Amino acid sequence: LADPLIDHAEGQLFLNEAFKIIVEEVLRKGTDAEEKVCEWREPESLALLLDLQLRDTGESQDRLLQRVRDVAKYSIKTSHPHFFNQQFGGVDYHSLAGRFLTEALNTNLFTYEVAPVFVLMETEVLKALRQLVGWTDGDGIFCPGGSTSNMYAMNLARYKLFPEVKTKGLWALPRLAIFSSPGSHYSVQKGASYLGFGTDSVILVKVDDGGRMIPEDLDAKIELAKSQGFVPLLVSCTSGTTVLGSFDPLDCIADVCDKHQLWMHVDAAWGGSVLFSKQHRHLMKGVERAKSVSWNPHKMLLAGLQCSAFLLQDTTNLLKRCNCANASYLFQQDKFYDVNLDIGDKSVQCSRKVDCLKLWLMWKAVGSTGLEHRVDKAFLHVRYLLEQMKKRDGFQLVSTVAPVIKERMMKEGTMMVGYQPLGDLGNFFRVTVFSPHICHKDMDFFLDEIERLGKCL
Amino acid sequence: LADPLIDHAEGQLFLNEAFKIIVEEVLRKGTDAEEKVCEWREPESLALLLDLQLRDTGESQDRLLQRVRDVAKYSIKTSHPHFFNQQFGGVDYHSLAGRFLTEALNTNLFTYEVAPVFVLMETEVLKALRQLVGWTDGDGIFCPGGSTSNMYAMNLARYKLFPEVKTKGLWALPRLAIFSSPGSHYSVQKGASYLGFGTDSVILVKVDDGGRMIPEDLDAKIELAKSQGFVPLLVSCTSGTTVLGSFDPLDCIADVCDKHQLWMHVDAAWGGSVLFSKQHRHLMKGVERAKSVSWNPHKMLLAGLQCSAFLLQDTTNLLKRCNCANASYLFQQDKFYDVNLDIGDKSVQCSRKVDCLKLWLMWKAVGSTGLEHRVDKAFLHVRYLLEQMKKRDGFQLVSTVAPVIKERMMKEGTMMVGYQPLGDLGNFFRVTVFSPHICHKDMDFFLDEIERLGKCL
Repeated sequence: LADPLIDHAEGQLFLNEAFKIIVEEVLRKGTDAEEKVCEWREPESLALLLDLQLRDTGESQDRLLQRVRDVAKYSIKTSHPHFFNQQFGGVDYHSLAGRFLTEALNTNLFTYEVAPVFVLMETEVLKALRQLVGWTDGDGIFCPGGSTSNMYAMNLARYKLFPEVKTKGLWALPRLAIFSSPGSHYSVQKGASYLGFGTDSVILVKVDDGGRMIPEDLDAKIELAKSQGFVPLLVSCTSGTTVLGSFDPLDCIADVCDKHQLWMHVDAAWGGSVLFSKQHRHLMKGVERAKSVSWNPHKMLLAGLQCSAFLLQDTTNLLKRCNCANASYLFQQDKFYDVNLDIGDKSVQCSRKVDCLKLWLMWKAVGSTGLEHRVDKAFLHVRYLLEQMKKRDGFQLVSTVAPVIKERMMKEGTMMVGYQPLGDLGNFFRVTVFSPHICHKDMDFFLDEIERLGKCL
Repeated sequence: LADPLIDHAEGQLFLNEAFKIIVEEVLRKGTDAEEKVCEWREPESLALLLDLQLRDTGESQDRLLQRVRDVAKYSIKTSHPHFFNQQFGGVDYHSLAGRFLTEALNTNLFTYEVAPVFVLMETEVLKALRQLVGWTDGDGIFCPGGSTSNMYAMNLARYKLFPEVKTKGLWALPRLAIFSSPGSHYSVQKGASYLGFGTDSVILVKVDDGGRMIPEDLDAKIELAKSQGFVPLLVSCTSGTTVLGSFDPLDCIADVCDKHQLWMHVDAAWGGSVLFSKQHRHLMKGVERAKSVSWNPHKMLLAGLQCSAFLLQDTTNLLKRCNCANASYLFQQDKFYDVNLDIGDKSVQCSRKVDCLKLWLMWKAVGSTGLEHRVDKAFLHVRYLLEQMKKRDGFQLVSTVAPVIKERMMKEGTMMVGYQPLGDLGNFFRVTVFSPHICHKDMDFFLDEIERLGKCL
């Protein structure tokens, strides 16, 4: 009792050694195109290799450093230039420094007293993101992922229309309807279920050939829902659908929302970043008419998982009124500073990670212009890949081929890319080329590799 | 386009320099009792000092390193031995190494293909935690905080009883009632509101003088709710209430739950860690009879924010059935490995951070025995503090004094401790002594400092 249990000097020594391994294995080798993107093992043998079991006694520092090496070795190198698998590929070192600092500081974004820097910083970052949306004022919060951000929108929309839901629940309300497109993210369904609406409350609006919501059909579906006794609540538009990357026509949808007085939410989890680009921000024309926007800088911008902003046009403290519980041990009103700085009661979480620092530091490092370049580069990548693919024979859709090619690439560890079916189209590869690390030769490699792996099928 | 946008060598150099600053400022100085725990600034002047504004152009590496230093300087040192403010005080270096590794690997815990190591590791860690609860089988998931874990319990309980809620929503169900104590965490209220139950659905059960739920009153309240037309759904017991640290009598509550067929959930966000201790685990006697448990190793065990396990006794895949949306771009069924390893559809999130590695590495480092020592030490701290306080005159409750003493300690930066009112008692200091860094002299310092700061009041 008289002495502390943990030796700081010894601990810092360990951290130092672990840091070296992380830099070498994850960041240097892990981003080297000559190295593997994954080191595939069957689950049973991987479990054995890692010796996962937790025991009564501790282990030596050397053994633990070997564990750090093993975890790095058998984990996927998501910053590798041949990781085309998902939208979080790539690494930004300023962001990563911010993430290390966040972890070391280990504080909680709920009160000014424990997070003075981050309360102010989050406010500033949200303001800057809102300005890109086109709002001079408003509110917002960082959430643990885009799904949660989308759920915040649903929760706020119903509270705004029926404040009594907070105390009396959905039983006191008429049946509500939420509108979205078949290409919208699955969190709309998950949210409808989790928040008590039920998935039957989600009414799917038709899309055009490009996967974009058809405003006329939205209007018709709203009328139909009304005639069936539903109260239309919210439209969840998508800027950048998960599979096709479609951008719903926000301006026309806003007209429909105005007409019927619906809450317009824009799920711009991946698409939001186009707002940095003078060339591409037209894709989200009309976004300033939305009531709320979800935007994940952990996707195209490389802020690192997790970084999801929920942005709100509201200036009436709706977020806090909707979510507050006024916990007396945390949000005391007799504090010696302005208690409006205790932003925690805006959240449905209690502990909330600091997700703003990494984005802020990265933004400071490259400026809005640097982030614009990342977005523009990603769009150039797409065009390049398309052109090259057209030049090659043998690239067509054969639904049984993708899973086999995927298996081969992972077992060889040369590349990773996702595949998925779409309607009657069968399986196709969904190539993500957001990462600013990749260049011509990586995309050529992608095409060569698909050809090579698919050759004898 | 031909070249990558980010220079890895340059980035790694920056990260290296940032790491040195983090170690020096946050970990070395930040844990030194001779240094300040906080460097108080008024919000306006802090905002100016930090120059938070985001601009078009980027900044030099030197300027950015200075920013890292500034953020560290003005942030609270939550690992400082005089940080008695909250339950996440303290640092474990093995956990921190795991957190850095997690950040560098930047992957998403939803499929085996992008997180092979972590899918297996999370499974193993959850199994080990469940064994401490007393279950040989079951399920679980790591959530972004204890509030979310508690909400998972409410969501599962209603789905289990009324599976149609997933599609039809709460409108198709009778009014449900949730039982908890006035000392339970505010997330029970937030969850009731967020999930659509409404806070009126939360019925508060009386507590005894020690703040523990009275099973007889629970029984009576359930009967009363039934007579009012409610369907009693769930009891949220607390192992370690936020303010008093009370442990509800789980065994007796389980009897009442059995009698009325209610879902028994245990919010052991902070208390769960006593299960490591042979000496103190009796506080949670009966926990094995619960249907679900929330447990945050980021509190007493020092795993670092965020680390919250939601544990489940169920073996029927309830979690996945309740939350799944079967997204075809992520959870393809024609993969080349066992798709049961794609655990992401158990979550209401899509992107989900890896929260298991830090706990696993720390556990490997010190063993269950080492974690037991941390728990036992925290309880010894409490006893010591109590004894010392009794020996001193002048420690009594004066409700207007705490906020002023708090202001003084923060402006001097010598110490941090939370205060709060309780019923008619007025404000008192809620001292958290979980951190294994602290020892006798830190607690003596605490008492001396309260005396010193309160002297001329």
